[in-house]
Amino acid sequence: MIQVGIVGGTGYTGVELLRLLSVHPEVDLQVITSRTEAGMAVADMFPNLRGHVRLGFSAPDTAALKRCDLVFFATPNGTAMTMVPELLDAGVKVIDLAADFRLRDPAEWERWYGKPHACPELLAEAVYGLPEMHREAIRSARLVANPGCYVTAVTLGLLPLVEREHVDAGRLIADAKSGVSGAGRGAEVRNLYAEAGDNLRAYAVPGHRHLPEITQNLRAAGARDASLIFVPHLAPMIRGIHATLYARLRDPALDVQGVYERRYAGEAFVDVMPAGSHPETRTVRGSNLCRIAVHRPGGGECVVVLSVIDNLVKGAAGQAVQNMNLMFALGESTALDAPALLP
Amino acid sequence: MIQVGIVGGTGYTGVELLRLLSVHPEVDLQVITSRTEAGMAVADMFPNLRGHVRLGFSAPDTAALKRCDLVFFATPNGTAMTMVPELLDAGVKVIDLAADFRLRDPAEWERWYGKPHACPELLAEAVYGLPEMHREAIRSARLVANPGCYVTAVTLGLLPLVEREHVDAGRLIADAKSGVSGAGRGAEVRNLYAEAGDNLRAYAVPGHRHLPEITQNLRAAGARDASLIFVPHLAPMIRGIHATLYARLRDPALDVQGVYERRYAGEAFVDVMPAGSHPETRTVRGSNLCRIAVHRPGGGECVVVLSVIDNLVKGAAGQAVQNMNLMFALGESTALDAPALLP
Amino acid sequence: MIQVGIVGGTGYTGVELLRLLSVHPEVDLQVITSRTEAGMAVADMFPNLRGHVRLGFSAPDTAALKRCDLVFFATPNGTAMTMVPELLDAGVKVIDLAADFRLRDPAEWERWYGKPHACPELLAEAVYGLPEMHREAIRSARLVANPGCYVTAVTLGLLPLVEREHVDAGRLIADAKSGVSGAGRGAEVRNLYAEAGDNLRAYAVPGHRHLPEITQNLRAAGARDASLIFVPHLAPMIRGIHATLYARLRDPALDVQGVYERRYAGEAFVDVMPAGSHPETRTVRGSNLCRIAVHRPGGGECVVVLSVIDNLVKGAAGQAVQNMNLMFALGESTALDAPALLP
Amino acid sequence: MIQVGIVGGTGYTGVELLRLLSVHPEVDLQVITSRTEAGMAVADMFPNLRGHVRLGFSAPDTAALKRCDLVFFATPNGTAMTMVPELLDAGVKVIDLAADFRLRDPAEWERWYGKPHACPELLAEAVYGLPEMHREAIRSARLVANPGCYVTAVTLGLLPLVEREHVDAGRLIADAKSGVSGAGRGAEVRNLYAEAGDNLRAYAVPGHRHLPEITQNLRAAGARDASLIFVPHLAPMIRGIHATLYARLRDPALDVQGVYERRYAGEAFVDVMPAGSHPETRTVRGSNLCRIAVHRPGGGECVVVLSVIDNLVKGAAGQAVQNMNLMFALGESTALDAPALLP
Repeated sequence: MIQVGIVGGTGYTGVELLRLLSVHPEVDLQVITSRTEAGMAVADMFPNLRGHVRLGFSAPDTAALKRCDLVFFATPNGTAMTMVPELLDAGVKVIDLAADFRLRDPAEWERWYGKPHACPELLAEAVYGLPEMHREAIRSARLVANPGCYVTAVTLGLLPLVEREHVDAGRLIADAKSGVSGAGRGAEVRNLYAEAGDNLRAYAVPGHRHLPEITQNLRAAGARDASLIFVPHLAPMIRGIHATLYARLRDPALDVQGVYERRYAGEAFVDVMPAGSHPETRTVRGSNLCRIAVHRPGGGECVVVLSVIDNLVKGAAGQAVQNMNLMFALGESTALDAPALLP
Repeated sequence: MIQVGIVGGTGYTGVELLRLLSVHPEVDLQVITSRTEAGMAVADMFPNLRGHVRLGFSAPDTAALKRCDLVFFATPNGTAMTMVPELLDAGVKVIDLAADFRLRDPAEWERWYGKPHACPELLAEAVYGLPEMHREAIRSARLVANPGCYVTAVTLGLLPLVEREHVDAGRLIADAKSGVSGAGRGAEVRNLYAEAGDNLRAYAVPGHRHLPEITQNLRAAGARDASLIFVPHLAPMIRGIHATLYARLRDPALDVQGVYERRYAGEAFVDVMPAGSHPETRTVRGSNLCRIAVHRPGGGECVVVLSVIDNLVKGAAGQAVQNMNLMFALGESTALDAPALLP
Repeated sequence: MIQVGIVGGTGYTGVELLRLLSVHPEVDLQVITSRTEAGMAVADMFPNLRGHVRLGFSAPDTAALKRCDLVFFATPNGTAMTMVPELLDAGVKVIDLAADFRLRDPAEWERWYGKPHACPELLAEAVYGLPEMHREAIRSARLVANPGCYVTAVTLGLLPLVEREHVDAGRLIADAKSGVSGAGRGAEVRNLYAEAGDNLRAYAVPGHRHLPEITQNLRAAGARDASLIFVPHLAPMIRGIHATLYARLRDPALDVQGVYERRYAGEAFVDVMPAGSHPETRTVRGSNLCRIAVHRPGGGECVVVLSVIDNLVKGAAGQAVQNMNLMFALGESTALDAPALLP
Repeated sequence: MIQVGIVGGTGYTGVELLRLLSVHPEVDLQVITSRTEAGMAVADMFPNLRGHVRLGFSAPDTAALKRCDLVFFATPNGTAMTMVPELLDAGVKVIDLAADFRLRDPAEWERWYGKPHACPELLAEAVYGLPEMHREAIRSARLVANPGCYVTAVTLGLLPLVEREHVDAGRLIADAKSGVSGAGRGAEVRNLYAEAGDNLRAYAVPGHRHLPEITQNLRAAGARDASLIFVPHLAPMIRGIHATLYARLRDPALDVQGVYERRYAGEAFVDVMPAGSHPETRTVRGSNLCRIAVHRPGGGECVVVLSVIDNLVKGAAGQAVQNMNLMFALGESTALDAPALLP
């Protein structure tokens, strides 16, 4: 059994991680810390976990965390980087669900997150936790940076096109729509039901933190000149991301469907749908799958990729568990193979 | 492995049954029939089942059904009763998720369902599939009538009060609110998103088919004079039933909380919440639980019971699987113990 | 033209009041104060008012308010009572949309609102602003206490039954369902889209502030022993209240439909629907109407009343404008006669 | 007073037209025909119109329609073209809210709508009813083709860029998100609450009927080589379209904000928002406005335009009333100036 600790855990990423870990046959949940909720039973905050999680939140306690084999950080950006070095030194493996270790360039990190990085020396070691790109490195990693939600949907949607240079990577467009849980469990007026309901809006068009992360991935995949216009939108739903991706093919004769099917042939969590499909976000609700369909409207040079995930599962907690399974040599799908909840 | 067949299966009850059975370790799904969709892959209609259910819908085929150990009917009311006798004769066990075998009185059935019953001789044999009332009978049943969704929430909510005659059973009120999936997957204008969204309405106030079923349960539990006002409402959500129940205590000094805790102490799927709680429907989304809280507003003689279920799980497919587990001597919770999806 | 001031105005009651007043032909909006948003243009906070409201929020300024004919308070409970005496002394009329002047007994007020009342001497003078009960008094009032949202739906639904003692007023039940805007525009986790969406829950079952207000109304209407069980619920919609009311008739032969039709025959904003109807909240969305239907399930002694309003209009801002129209001898429906928005 | 008839009127476009016309001071509603609902009171089908519309649906009756000054068609595609010639001959003016007269090329019409056009000779006369493009022609038109909903949002969003050739019109992208009312009031499984709720999906990516209409508009505006990738999506909301538009500027130094502000300076129903804005669909709910914001992410050559409308108002019935106002020399905003309903 893997002894697991969680730092944070009062947000949506945390409750989803608890939901998945509570039924994982190889996990023994040891400790969940929360500065604000210490003393409260987890199941009092999240009653769906009554009968499944008996732990309570405890005050931050490095000693207890050091006794774990693995610690997940489900904290706001900027927290993990202050605690990770000590844990790694103690031989604990770490998966950070926040953004602290996602960007390899500390200057870029500081630019987007507004403060200096606390342990830039670890950025080179941290493995970017997208198994479909970095599976082997994840297996042997001490520190995994779990990808952002939009980033997962967009990267998986574009990967087969950019890694073989099938498209003009300098003119990519990603129009993404997210459910409101993606904005977190913080009390913000703009995320109230009466504000976000029956409403749709774009946000952060001038620049969103997931943009440099996507660009870094596309460049890592081989598109050195990758440049993307990224427009996120908030849609009135709880879970789900639908990324609609636009690219120009270099060779209009390319069998795009075949490219995707071959690229993801062995992947348990990427489902390339039949030609002509329109994947719906609800078909992945609660599941770790990314479903993708590719289109060529009018048969022209523009390819339109539709990529859907559950932002809390493949876009956060599910992918973290997938990474854990790899790091501890378990079956990659362990505890991740339940069908999506539909309707 | 239990060889299982499903008749129907293109509605919400059907897809939920498939979701649960597809991960059940003791079930081998043999055949799914649908008159209208024969030839279509199940996963083409319900893409959440891609990779989980490889069967296609086939035309009704009694021979194939007779080779099963168990057949579920997820058909419109009035279908099962035309096929069940032949299957029972062939030694097949049956769970009907529709209403055909729920009422013991054929005249009452005809009154509420508008046609004569096709096999009234089976009504006495059929076991009403509410395990918290009839567990032992279910274990040895050939034919189980799976309860209605409202009926489950209301009966479990009132049972501890009526079976010990703690309340005036002649003046009970059940005000119930249901998500729209309870209305089924049929194409009806009134259930369109643009009709049912951002809207709440009562319906069937003069009389709803679940009323005689609830009354039959309360009487079976010991309240011979049970009489209920039942007002169902449609709320703009996908899943969930919230039943708010009102009753007058005979003895205002009764420890109502204790009555409920003792009654359901051994039940895996009834969660009596701490005094003062307000259970939310989302805390049982996708799960087979019924969560109950009891209140005494102002400390008076009126007791208010709050009872929530997922109408498609404990209110339909989950309870059917629970019944199957009992009928085949499996662990009662097998394949039913995943936490609810929240948020 | 009536010179109008608003204190508060950054919540949902405030924006709805602005929407209605901005098209009122007899209103000249002079000043809107907000301690927190002084300096901000109203239309920057509420873009639906771009082109309709050119004012900005200003810091609280008693002198400016004293120059008005009428001041609306759209403030949290407890604010109006500290400012109203001075305005009344200056000859300004006041409509308070909060609860400060709703309860006539200062001890009761303190019990439910947690602090002593600041001007108990005004409670006797304040007129309770439900025109269907107190129209004549409102016409000549200096100070109007605008009713609570649940209170309006429940009182209008029960009034015809209790004022003639047609029912046992000691055993009334009000099961009410509200949209989330009723909880206000404050940043609270429980009202986030991802918390309140696809979910239904009761709350405040032990006791809600609207209970004493309803009881006071029923007693004022003649039911001296009025006693009510009141259970509010939060439903996943933006606007709307659906009150389902249960009462026992003294005379089962009573023509209940006729009682309601006669009682509300001359009322512009109460629509008694045909027998057998089920009013939907969306049929009053954005409108000042209360639609009511009455039922007698099974023809018994229990009457079920369905009463729907838009909580922000007839339940708040619309009723306030109706009161203003009466106080200034305008047509009662002025600026309130647009049809509801459906779908 | 203008004597007005409506053909159709049982769909969402119809009920919205009735809502707007019922408060129009210059309109006398004479007749509403419906083949399927003849004899039913309009207010029984749409209870929000109780007290506002006293007419009933009547069987199709050309004689009654010929006595009108103006007839609106709110019928399925292909109906108006069979009746319009006779009405025009009788001196009646016509506004068709369906697609029958939108495309100028009968071959193109047949290609997209699947049957030959019944009166191709009228296509040249019909005026395309987008006042911001064709105001003068509309004033004197006998026959107005009311634009499609997506078409309105996309055309108004791109018009300032394409009519002055500021962008490469051969590589435009329109990613549009619509509420479910845009799919109409027909009983379709895919538009049920339990299907469309908490879900987002693209549809018709290979080709949507609004594509040739948008292209025709852009070409009419001066972009002869206009070519567009158009991807519509269904979002879980009732009303609203959010079009996100992508184009490449020819001159990166262009003052795009100024271009839009100047283009729409005199327009009552196009609101160019301040630089940096993100318009929300709810800010136009129930209103005839199109709100637009323009962005230059990263300051590059790509311009991102955000354009929102209410699909039933500016996208259908409101624009039809605006056209009527123009055709009958009324104030263009008559009965169209109420603020949007927010929240």
